[in-house]
Amino acid sequence: MAAKILKQLTGNMLIAQSGGPTVVINQSLVGAVLEAKKHKEIKKILGSLHGLKGILEENIIDLGKESTSELEAVANTPSSALGSVRKKPTPEDCVKVFSVLQKYNVRFFFYIGGNDSAETTHIINEEAKKNGYVMKCFHICKTIDNDLKENDHTPGFGSAAKFVAQAFMGDNLDNRALPGVKINVIMGRGAGFLTAASALARIYPDDGPHLIYIPERAFSLEKFVADVKGVFEKYKRCVVAVSEGIVDETGEPIASKFISEVDSHGNKQLSGSGALGDALAKEIKGKAQISRVRSDTFGYLQRSFAGLVSAIDAKEARLAGATAVKFACGGKFDNGSTAIKRAPGKTYKTWIERTELRNVAKETRHMPDEFINAAGNDVTPAFIKYATPIVGPLPKIGRFKGVKVTKA
Amino acid sequence: MAAKILKQLTGNMLIAQSGGPTVVINQSLVGAVLEAKKHKEIKKILGSLHGLKGILEENIIDLGKESTSELEAVANTPSSALGSVRKKPTPEDCVKVFSVLQKYNVRFFFYIGGNDSAETTHIINEEAKKNGYVMKCFHICKTIDNDLKENDHTPGFGSAAKFVAQAFMGDNLDNRALPGVKINVIMGRGAGFLTAASALARIYPDDGPHLIYIPERAFSLEKFVADVKGVFEKYKRCVVAVSEGIVDETGEPIASKFISEVDSHGNKQLSGSGALGDALAKEIKGKAQISRVRSDTFGYLQRSFAGLVSAIDAKEARLAGATAVKFACGGKFDNGSTAIKRAPGKTYKTWIERTELRNVAKETRHMPDEFINAAGNDVTPAFIKYATPIVGPLPKIGRFKGVKVTKA
Repeated sequence: MAAKILKQLTGNMLIAQSGGPTVVINQSLVGAVLEAKKHKEIKKILGSLHGLKGILEENIIDLGKESTSELEAVANTPSSALGSVRKKPTPEDCVKVFSVLQKYNVRFFFYIGGNDSAETTHIINEEAKKNGYVMKCFHICKTIDNDLKENDHTPGFGSAAKFVAQAFMGDNLDNRALPGVKINVIMGRGAGFLTAASALARIYPDDGPHLIYIPERAFSLEKFVADVKGVFEKYKRCVVAVSEGIVDETGEPIASKFISEVDSHGNKQLSGSGALGDALAKEIKGKAQISRVRSDTFGYLQRSFAGLVSAIDAKEARLAGATAVKFACGGKFDNGSTAIKRAPGKTYKTWIERTELRNVAKETRHMPDEFINAAGNDVTPAFIKYATPIVGPLPKIGRFKGVKVTKA
Repeated sequence: MAAKILKQLTGNMLIAQSGGPTVVINQSLVGAVLEAKKHKEIKKILGSLHGLKGILEENIIDLGKESTSELEAVANTPSSALGSVRKKPTPEDCVKVFSVLQKYNVRFFFYIGGNDSAETTHIINEEAKKNGYVMKCFHICKTIDNDLKENDHTPGFGSAAKFVAQAFMGDNLDNRALPGVKINVIMGRGAGFLTAASALARIYPDDGPHLIYIPERAFSLEKFVADVKGVFEKYKRCVVAVSEGIVDETGEPIASKFISEVDSHGNKQLSGSGALGDALAKEIKGKAQISRVRSDTFGYLQRSFAGLVSAIDAKEARLAGATAVKFACGGKFDNGSTAIKRAPGKTYKTWIERTELRNVAKETRHMPDEFINAAGNDVTPAFIKYATPIVGPLPKIGRFKGVKVTKA
């Protein structure tokens, strides 16, 4: 489409949030709204409640009526302030969504979410094109799973990783005080990034997590038991980080032996149950003859815990929202997705680039080989280097020198 | 015993930690150590590793060798820095423990823990008396369960309650974004205080937790299902807080239908498994015909999460440790436990009193009736008033005005 048409396009903007919430997803929302206020080609700033569902039901609010202080308060609040949805639109939904957007003279559409949301944005964009309706459709990246293609990392990951790291810092010390085997199940679906972030908790050489299992390596119950036994012999204790999405050598999720629910995108419902952790704990009790074995499933706290935010994550999430609006208000593109890029080298420097929707949609990104150790049960120093600046500073941990008293 | 003998007693001090860790238990330890350094009647300051176990095995460190900066770093670190233990001493253990204490010329013994630890302190004190060995035995109160008699509240509770409140603040917003039923299982054994702290998360009238079930009221699955259905009809969503220790009308723990392990004190092992939450979620799915039902068991994070501390809790924990040493260095008592007392009235004012070991040992405290609503499924404003200053300030939460756009 001609740059002139794109540049001169004026009309209303509609923004929505989709998929699993994060603690910084409202930063992206507010970043987009505040940026939109600067562009006179954007008239009304509308927000759809619960993503596509709000469009289909015309359940829409006027975000232009929110004051800057209200917007800033929401920006610092976890979870999707507009409400979210897990909905893969049917062909009929797409027609309906497009007709509603047209009815409200929406010429700027923004969808904040993960790869499923990028796909939805792409479908809506195609529907508009098919009907010769000029509309700009942009996807704003978000996911604690950190599994979006084209992105060095995604908004939401840093804060969730900070939660996981601080949880493991404390849990490692808890396990040190009352030794045994502790298994913690972490979110992340098919990607191991969030589970890997548990490694940031380590300070002393004997600190846990001692073993880290991620979906990028086939999980074997036999090897798992042998690994735990080995660590336990060395340290008389063992802290394990396990991804909810670990799979066996055939690609079958280990959790699926215990969990059966799926969401509307056909993804297996891996969260909201303690079944995987409990099953792994039972395995260790039975096969490794260790009596004190416990499991915790960190669950939804990882993505929604109030008051625990990575400052850099919040900043980048805000920037992703604002930059999407800048892209949309330019004359170059009528669609795209925001991607966080990072400069190579020691200094942490990131920026937001536009990428094609199809580059982000559907497929997911996995932990690169250089982040995984040879045994497939830990991360490498390269991962620590990658994740540390995204998560930011962690609490300081003290330990006694512990000068032993000679037996009397 | 004559005040003069007690006052003139000199010798070594030994301190240990027992039971479940908290994020402020090291504040009590460091408070005691720093106070002990001021008293010339205390010679060596020894720390036993893993409570009684360290005494039995003579696994003892010299805390006098730790610098103030090392001590302060440990004070701000979660979980028991000396290690902990869950051990009810046998009569043979008591004889052995006493002989080791005598061998190391321990005249000042401090045990940081809950009611089981108070009982242990009492037993050791009796053994010393039986043998005519002059020794001062003090218990320093600690438990996230907040279930110690004589105490308005206990060190560790405020920080754990802060974790629970912040978790519910975020989880309520997560549930608001993706509506359904969410059940969260909270620690606390037979006392409902920690579960009740979830109520501090509420800001807006429709905020969860919408239902709170505690061990002080008999739990009925039928009433639970009816309650959830009622809330769901009203709000199209429901967030539930459930104590791990809920019991049926016969006093039988609901969790015991799914969990069988017991610890050495004969207490049922209620933590470290997601079974109760999963079972309750299954009940709602089956009986209330609600499709999106999830459960999380907050688990060990509640007592050990790094970097999340109630400032007042940390301060009081430090004071409890220091005051125990002051009590022990006086001429009035050769034993006792520290209890947090609180002035009535609007201004929050607390202090530490000495109480008899037997007043704290064995028996536990429960939520008073005035903190529980008539239906037995929520707390009262009196509880909120009680808990708010102990937990301290919580994160600010923002919400859109949400001006609806008239359907086009």
